[in-house]
Amino acid sequence: MSTISERLAARDLALPAPPAPGGAYVPVVADGGIGFVAGQLPLRDGQLVATGRVGEEVTLEQGRACAEAAAVNLLAALAGAYGEQLAGVRRLLRLAVYVSSAPGFHKQAAVADGASELLAEVLGEAGLHVRTAIGVAVLPRNAPVELDATFALA
Amino acid sequence: MSTISERLAARDLALPAPPAPGGAYVPVVADGGIGFVAGQLPLRDGQLVATGRVGEEVTLEQGRACAEAAAVNLLAALAGAYGEQLAGVRRLLRLAVYVSSAPGFHKQAAVADGASELLAEVLGEAGLHVRTAIGVAVLPRNAPVELDATFALA
Amino acid sequence: MSTISERLAARDLALPAPPAPGGAYVPVVADGGIGFVAGQLPLRDGQLVATGRVGEEVTLEQGRACAEAAAVNLLAALAGAYGEQLAGVRRLLRLAVYVSSAPGFHKQAAVADGASELLAEVLGEAGLHVRTAIGVAVLPRNAPVELDATFALA
Repeated sequence: MSTISERLAARDLALPAPPAPGGAYVPVVADGGIGFVAGQLPLRDGQLVATGRVGEEVTLEQGRACAEAAAVNLLAALAGAYGEQLAGVRRLLRLAVYVSSAPGFHKQAAVADGASELLAEVLGEAGLHVRTAIGVAVLPRNAPVELDATFALA
Repeated sequence: MSTISERLAARDLALPAPPAPGGAYVPVVADGGIGFVAGQLPLRDGQLVATGRVGEEVTLEQGRACAEAAAVNLLAALAGAYGEQLAGVRRLLRLAVYVSSAPGFHKQAAVADGASELLAEVLGEAGLHVRTAIGVAVLPRNAPVELDATFALA
Repeated sequence: MSTISERLAARDLALPAPPAPGGAYVPVVADGGIGFVAGQLPLRDGQLVATGRVGEEVTLEQGRACAEAAAVNLLAALAGAYGEQLAGVRRLLRLAVYVSSAPGFHKQAAVADGASELLAEVLGEAGLHVRTAIGVAVLPRNAPVELDATFALA
């Protein structure tokens, strides 16, 4: 069985160090079988992959790439708490995807698929999740996408 | 005791087939006593009941009807997972309601009541829930309302 | 050990009566070890501390004060369910902060810290949480901030 890092590498992605929280909170909390990951931005090496609203400065394809980059940080946050193989994580339960959207842009689901597809590929069955994708006015640091997750503990 | 379908019929509503997810995710996930339903839109027979922002193209009353329609799809998603009587669902816990809102529109709570009241009527005591209602810039497919839920397993 | 009221008093804050829900829902629900608090606004004595969007009518500092005021109501809602010492609450798990934001405002995290820092101060270790902060177009009653929480039961 390939490792999570190998599956990321197959997509030219690497598991970075766990992202530092952007405020007075912690990246991962778990209790009683359920866990939560704090909101993740599409940061790579500390820089946002893109800035602005999808449907405006940011194209749908770039938005998908942002969702994917944020999902990589989600995996990194989990790896920071549970090790690179995510021992201790039984499965992903829920993904919420917030898309900074231009007024006429309605393809939030297609943007969010950039994250959902990566997680399904990397985590397999354990990556199946329910999802809510919404369009928001503006995100921290002018990020095009933010996402967070709920997961079940092993 | 009347069935869920009978209580819906009393409001001229019917339980449709479970809505197909709009992306790379599943409609319902449960683990360890808690479950999540994916974001639901006010679709009826595959079409949105209305499109646009509440307080603009969409009136408050239409917004309430959209919240109700999305709640019917929430029940349909649960019925798809647990059968028409929702055996396996002990109670609803939390409802999140996202209202696509015109800039000056501040009655998100009144819109969300369209869903909360239906769920209380259909589920009774088991339908009591906490709720968060927010106004958002834009929703998938230009829907006026989206909602999702957390529930407890029997 | 000081009480929650004493720690609030040290910041010139008082624990109010539990806020009444703004619609057809309940303020707190818990089941199977996990609990949820409904969306809280920055109300004090029934009035919003401020109205409008942060980055426009509302400054960053006022936005932080709004997040703090909403967090006080969150504590009040928990106290309404579990008593003033929050016996029955093991720890806070997750905080979601929705900031009504002017188009160019990107400091949602700094606004949300107004709530996170208060909760950490009042609850200590039990107040550590993951957090998602997003900017939204408009909130109920034109509030600048809304927040909700997930917690673990003792």
